[in-house]
Amino acid sequence: MVQNVIERTIVWGDLDALGIVFYPRYSEWIDACGHHFFDKLGLNLGQLWSERGIQFGLLETSCRYHQSGRYFQRIKIVTAIETLTEKTVYLSHRIYDREDEILMVDGLEKRICMDVSDSKRFRGLEIPTDVYSILQQAVNS
Amino acid sequence: MVQNVIERTIVWGDLDALGIVFYPRYSEWIDACGHHFFDKLGLNLGQLWSERGIQFGLLETSCRYHQSGRYFQRIKIVTAIETLTEKTVYLSHRIYDREDEILMVDGLEKRICMDVSDSKRFRGLEIPTDVYSILQQAVNS
Amino acid sequence: MVQNVIERTIVWGDLDALGIVFYPRYSEWIDACGHHFFDKLGLNLGQLWSERGIQFGLLETSCRYHQSGRYFQRIKIVTAIETLTEKTVYLSHRIYDREDEILMVDGLEKRICMDVSDSKRFRGLEIPTDVYSILQQAVNS
Amino acid sequence: MVQNVIERTIVWGDLDALGIVFYPRYSEWIDACGHHFFDKLGLNLGQLWSERGIQFGLLETSCRYHQSGRYFQRIKIVTAIETLTEKTVYLSHRIYDREDEILMVDGLEKRICMDVSDSKRFRGLEIPTDVYSILQQAVNS
Repeated sequence: MVQNVIERTIVWGDLDALGIVFYPRYSEWIDACGHHFFDKLGLNLGQLWSERGIQFGLLETSCRYHQSGRYFQRIKIVTAIETLTEKTVYLSHRIYDREDEILMVDGLEKRICMDVSDSKRFRGLEIPTDVYSILQQAVNS
Repeated sequence: MVQNVIERTIVWGDLDALGIVFYPRYSEWIDACGHHFFDKLGLNLGQLWSERGIQFGLLETSCRYHQSGRYFQRIKIVTAIETLTEKTVYLSHRIYDREDEILMVDGLEKRICMDVSDSKRFRGLEIPTDVYSILQQAVNS
Repeated sequence: MVQNVIERTIVWGDLDALGIVFYPRYSEWIDACGHHFFDKLGLNLGQLWSERGIQFGLLETSCRYHQSGRYFQRIKIVTAIETLTEKTVYLSHRIYDREDEILMVDGLEKRICMDVSDSKRFRGLEIPTDVYSILQQAVNS
Repeated sequence: MVQNVIERTIVWGDLDALGIVFYPRYSEWIDACGHHFFDKLGLNLGQLWSERGIQFGLLETSCRYHQSGRYFQRIKIVTAIETLTEKTVYLSHRIYDREDEILMVDGLEKRICMDVSDSKRFRGLEIPTDVYSILQQAVNS
């Protein structure tokens, strides 16, 4: 199973008044890691959009918070496909402390393939065969 | 059941490159609406923290996205308690278009009562009796 | 001189670990207030873009911070045109506490009129006559 | 003169509806780069705060935007001290495209040394001698 790992350091602007990460920041990182994951597979989402009018939109997201993130903590985010269907791809994102490997947050993004060529009206569609086979290979390898 | 309603207008900075709301923005609004909801009940979370060392931390969040938000769309967010236990309160947040009342996003925050008086180490605790009875009244009224 | 006033309450997610507003949040609000200001003049920037391929892009921004914003503080942001030239419009944004009217932040956005009809390459252009006369009226009235 | 360089890739969540970086994101990165710069000098701002009750607060910020940032563009941010006085340190942050070295944004943060040990009331103070001499060395080296 292909995984992508992104490292980052928690910074001042990620923190809330308690000195721990404000939770919508996790969603921002997770979204970015989804894009990095697709890019790693050779499926840059910017190109998929500009060249083929396709995007993977969000149906549902969820996050469980196990341990608070702190200032200058070094973390890593591990992204992989959890489920693949004809129209959808579910990505799991696990955020770990980089020193002790403790799981801090685990998140899930349920994304659906969309035709976004009409910017006013998006509609779900089956993942194109070539894209699907790349995703399937990422699951099976 | 007590509900709190917050109105807002979607602005430029909420949008992604597709011209629809970037999903972590919903989490930001939902978090804010949670704070407004507590404040409406007379439980301002800033005061609970500074006066009693208590905060309601996040265990889990989830969001389902039904319809994309667009530039200058006028929305409202309706917040209520979904579940109340001795240690936790789950808040539901439903985001609607203000004109046609269509449900755009529904989100859930599972929050746990925490003693945060030691800023280095937070720990779960039972919701204090007076706070619990206010929350229970919000469920039952 | 036409002014637009937007009120808001500082929320948890706006704060940093010191319990005061994290300064890029001011820029987010200021940008939103710029869009509200144009909309008030009958120049909705979303429409200007979709109907005429025009946007007002940023050349330069600056902010001076006089007093820290705190949790649940009620503020207002007053936006007006500071300077208008053939190609540019400078917006001043003053953020006040709503109770005591103390100036907390003052910001400036230098915006230039751009043809953005080619999404790959934007270029500066003179503000169209009808738009310019609306802006000039906002300065003079 | 000591410089700190941080590399990053522009991601989906940084973009606005025009497909270019929404400008408050630059402020977020610049703030983070300020913290990285201090950390590089051995002056971790989290430690300065927790151990000595000191923080470098913002007096003023400004940014000039020369070229738009785009999806998956690889950039670097170069941070250095521009001016050092008894109470203040001004940091310059220059954002470049990593391939062609073109300057995209240059920003300035005017920071003042503050005693923040009383969380309700911050006040400016002279930069402590040991901290000042580290900063001065960063200017002169």
